[in-house]
Order: sequence, then C-alpha cells, then structure tokens
Amino acid sequence: MPELRRDPVIGRWVIIATERAKRPSDFKIEADEPSLKPCPYCEGNESQTPPEVMALRKPGTKPNGPGWDVRIVPSISGFLKPKGDLDRHGKGLYDLMNGIGTHEMVIMTPKHTGNIHDIDEAQIGKVIEAVIKRISQLRQDERLKYVLMFANHGKIAGGGNTGHLHIQLIATPVTPKRVKEELTGSKRYFDYRDRCVICDMIKQELKEDKRVICKEGGLIAITPFCSRFPFETWIMPLKHSCDFDKTPGLNIKDFGRIYKGLFSKMNKVLGNFPFNVILHTAPFRRSHKKNYWETIEQDFHWHIEIMPRLTQVAGFEWGSGFYINPMPPEDACKALKEVK
Amino acid sequence: MPELRRDPVIGRWVIIATERAKRPSDFKIEADEPSLKPCPYCEGNESQTPPEVMALRKPGTKPNGPGWDVRIVPSISGFLKPKGDLDRHGKGLYDLMNGIGTHEMVIMTPKHTGNIHDIDEAQIGKVIEAVIKRISQLRQDERLKYVLMFANHGKIAGGGNTGHLHIQLIATPVTPKRVKEELTGSKRYFDYRDRCVICDMIKQELKEDKRVICKEGGLIAITPFCSRFPFETWIMPLKHSCDFDKTPGLNIKDFGRIYKGLFSKMNKVLGNFPFNVILHTAPFRRSHKKNYWETIEQDFHWHIEIMPRLTQVAGFEWGSGFYINPMPPEDACKALKEVK
Repeated sequence: MPELRRDPVIGRWVIIATERAKRPSDFKIEADEPSLKPCPYCEGNESQTPPEVMALRKPGTKPNGPGWDVRIVPSISGFLKPKGDLDRHGKGLYDLMNGIGTHEMVIMTPKHTGNIHDIDEAQIGKVIEAVIKRISQLRQDERLKYVLMFANHGKIAGGGNTGHLHIQLIATPVTPKRVKEELTGSKRYFDYRDRCVICDMIKQELKEDKRVICKEGGLIAITPFCSRFPFETWIMPLKHSCDFDKTPGLNIKDFGRIYKGLFSKMNKVLGNFPFNVILHTAPFRRSHKKNYWETIEQDFHWHIEIMPRLTQVAGFEWGSGFYINPMPPEDACKALKEVK
Repeated sequence: MPELRRDPVIGRWVIIATERAKRPSDFKIEADEPSLKPCPYCEGNESQTPPEVMALRKPGTKPNGPGWDVRIVPSISGFLKPKGDLDRHGKGLYDLMNGIGTHEMVIMTPKHTGNIHDIDEAQIGKVIEAVIKRISQLRQDERLKYVLMFANHGKIAGGGNTGHLHIQLIATPVTPKRVKEELTGSKRYFDYRDRCVICDMIKQELKEDKRVICKEGGLIAITPFCSRFPFETWIMPLKHSCDFDKTPGLNIKDFGRIYKGLFSKMNKVLGNFPFNVILHTAPFRRSHKKNYWETIEQDFHWHIEIMPRLTQVAGFEWGSGFYINPMPPEDACKALKEVK
C-alpha cells in the first residue's frame, strides 16, 4: 500500500509509491553536457557582461577586469529592473505593480566549467561569502522584500546553456507566495508548540537516523521525510537561524565541505543529473509590530533544498499540489551514505 | 518595464515580460508524435485493461467487450488503491495516511488516436457525460474528499506514450492543498465583497473585451489576466456554479463545441503543443456547519485550465511561486481570435 506523508511545514502531501520502489540506477536522467566553449562569464571576458555589482577580487585588481574569485553581474535578460519607484495600482478587481527588483548572476569560478566537481570546497565557501555580502547589501534597499537564491542545472530544470557555473539572485518587491506559505506554516506550528518546526524535525531525524546523510560543523543534510522528488536533499543549520546571511557562527568552509560532498555523492549515484537548488530564507521586511517580528525570528529556520529533476511534474501535481515520489527518502539516504 | 500582475483568487504573482514579447511562432515546441500502434485502450482490446468501472455503451453490448463510446478503467499503475479503510496516524511530528483513493483512465474514443482533432464535438460531449456520471458515483464514497480530472499531452507535460486519447480521474482522501488555496482565496473575496471572484472576473473580461476568446452557450473561454504560461486558457460557466458535475443547465454539446474549437485554434497557432488540462471543481465533503457549506456554494466557481507547456518552470518559479510569462495574454487572445 502506498504511503501518504504530510510535510509538517506547509501541509503538502506526498505519495511515496513504495510498491513501485526502484533502484537508484532507474533514475539516471542525464542533464545535457555543459558547453565547453569559453563564454562571457570567463575571466578575461569581463567586458562582455554588464558591469559587476560586486566581486571578491585579488588585492590591486580593478572592477570589470581579471583577478577575481567570484563575480556578481546583472542578468542581461533580467525581467525585473532596479530603477524607479514602486508603483502599485488596481484595475477593476486585478492588482498590478511595475517590475522593480534585481536579477543577478553569481559567477562561481573564473575558469570555464559547468561541473561542480571542478571547483573545490574553498571556492564554494568563497561563493557563499560573496552571496552573503550581496544579500546584506540588497537588504538595505527599502523597495525590496525578499531575495531568492537558486541554481538550475540541465535543460529540463530550466538551466541555461552558457556551461559556466553560476547561481542566481532575484530580489522581489513582494514576499513571494511560496515563502509566505512556509512562514505561515512555521508560525502555526510555533504557536501550538512553542518550538520551531525545523528544530523539531532535526531532533527527530537525528533520533530516528534513517534520513540523515551527513553533518559538517554546524550543518546537517537530510533526505526529508516528505521528499517530493527522488533524492531530494535539504541542508539546514543545526542551530536555529532564520536569515541565511546572518547565521550565527556559520563557517563557510563547513558549507563548502557539505555542499561539495553532497554533490560528489549524488553525482556518483545519479551521474550528471538535472536539478534545482533553492535557498529558503526569511524575508527582509518584517512587520514593525514587536510580536510579529519576534515570531519570524523564532519560528522560521532557513534551509537549502536540492531538487533532482528525475520525475515529471504533470497535471496531477499541478492541479492538486500532491507529489508522487517513487523513491522512499530512506532508500535514497541509504544509497547516498553508501558512497565512499 | 515588465508588469507584475496578481491573481485575484490565490494571490499568485505573474511577471508579464512585455519587453521581451514574442510572436506566437516563437513558442512552437512540438510534443512528441503520438504512437500509431494499436494499444490496450483500442476497441477490441478490452481484455488488456483492468475491468471497466463505467462505460457509455451501445444498447445490448456487454461490459469489457466492444460496443462502447467512452470507457473508464482503473489505471494499471495507480498509486492510490480503492480498497480498505482510511488510516491516519502520526509519527513524531510527521503525519501519515495510507494510500486510499482511486486512479482511473477515461478512454475518450474507441479508435486509436492521440489527436483531439480526430474526434468530433459530439464525442467530446460524450466524454463529459461519462465523466460527470463517474464523478457523481465517486461522490458517494465517504472516504473520498476530492476528484481531480486532468489530461497530460506530450512527454514534457508528463504525457504517457500509449498515443490513445484519454483523461485521468484521481480521487483523494484529503482535499488537495492547491484546491484549499483556491477555496480560501475565493472565500476571502466573497467575505469582503459579497460576490464571487470569478463572476466578477467574467464581468470585467466581458466589459474590457481584450482577453475573451469565445463564448458558446453558457460557457466562456478567456486567456486570464494573470496567465502563468503563454496561451494559458480558462473555460468557465457564465452562470455561477461550484460543482462541475452539477452545473445547472450545462449543455454538453456546448462543451464539446468550445473545447474542440479552442484546441483547433491553439493547434493552428502552436502546432502539436504539449499541455496539461486541469478541472478545478469544489470538494465533495463540505462542512455540515450551515454557514461554511453555504460559502463554498456561493463563492467557488468551477473552471478548466488549459496550460500549454511552452516555457520552463525552474528554480525561481519553484522557490517563489512567481511565474514569468513572456506572452501577454492580450496578445495570445488576439492571435487565437484571428484563427478562422
């Protein structure tokens, strides 16, 4: 009998189709091979991108020239624009807003590669250092409510074709609906139990020890109980923290190590698989009402979701919000842990 | 400047990227050609499917033999099972349920074809007649809360490879999250205005006349103001109705005509495009508290969403619930109306 599991944060149901459980090799969907051609993101080609908004540079090097480790540039096809005032208005029953916001590309390495295994843990740490700095800057812009950090790999996951490792930062003038759902769910749990739902989840996962892939410093990686996708993996800080860019005691080296380690394991099991990575962090602008502010600090816990795109999302998922996952997360965890 | 539009029912934001507006021909993504090989859904092969749960049959023909117009059979790979009692339980902070439910295939024609233009309006009407009957039967099962009707066409939309036209019915033991969101949004609007949000939407669309594709009897088809996808199209009853299977005065011939007409137009503009079709109707089990029951009857309005899958859903959409649509629905409507 298949098992229906309910996500404790947002109440999403997942059908774990245990009867059709499969071996990891059944999910090998290869992403298209990244292009090997040098591109505008390569060191030396800085003039081919819009001027950088930030970079981690070697001492003495100039903006928009070589000599950087991580470089952040506006997207050339950015669909949100950073200039102008927010204009919200109505049109009969519809609500509209002009497209204020930012869309930036974080170039993860000066050398052309589309594979995470070509960069080392220290470089991933630098990427996170740059992202944290940039999020702290965007936080100052009163018009912006949220910044979403994400990466797409492979065409079926919406990945582009530059073939050069990058992540994206999109800052929006409203708190996205998907984030609000998590805030609401986390608050509901906290109101009832006076504890953070993700802190409780981590405690239960450590105790059951069936879905914990690894720990590294203050971070833990699990295959969540309600995984929507085969080999879905979450990274979370063990100690409660709502803002990714303000995590107390976050060691970026630990981050580099756990991130690189996870992808090594996943690549060994799944090959060059298509995926999305999404950071779920708290919104910038919290209500000034003291109680409401306090609740987000206490009840929301940031996490990163790595979503391998090995199954189709079709009419049933679109219409219901249910997901069907033919790979129990316990089996996925076991397969990942077995990788040396 | 791109325009952000907010869906008045569930509050989802869509970025209409007007600056990058494209011609309809830019969206030609062909679905894989349906297989021409006879299959278990063909007339004469009834023994190759599980026994039918319902069929529209010619007088004197026997179940599970030839002589039918529309046939409904359980899915062979159904991940919900109709047998047993519902068992809900907890495991620490997680909630679980056994997989009670049904998953059925509505075979839309006895003749092997994967193209909607090979069947006529009258046949589509018969499919709807069969679906309405089956929904009314499923409604009697106290364990079931909702039935989702949907169709997937083309591999990237999750379509299968039988190449034989069918739609799917999945009945679930909980009201899906996605449906609850619409109920909540519709109720919020009704509480504030004492009117149904979709009734208001239809009035505004008829007045503005920029997104109405066509009307047929008591039905209207529009490209919604907050279209998530290029050429997204909704079909709704002009007169308020919350349950698809109990629509007062629904003429199934009108339904056949509008559905067939829309696909003819879309196929002319987009070729053999991949898509999902999803019926959004009210849940079966409404609270017995008089007030709550009354509100669903009054504030929820069924509609069918046709979602062409011509753009990628990537990290940004997954993480935010925002959608980016490079085709303003006004332009999509114009292109569809121009088709003779």
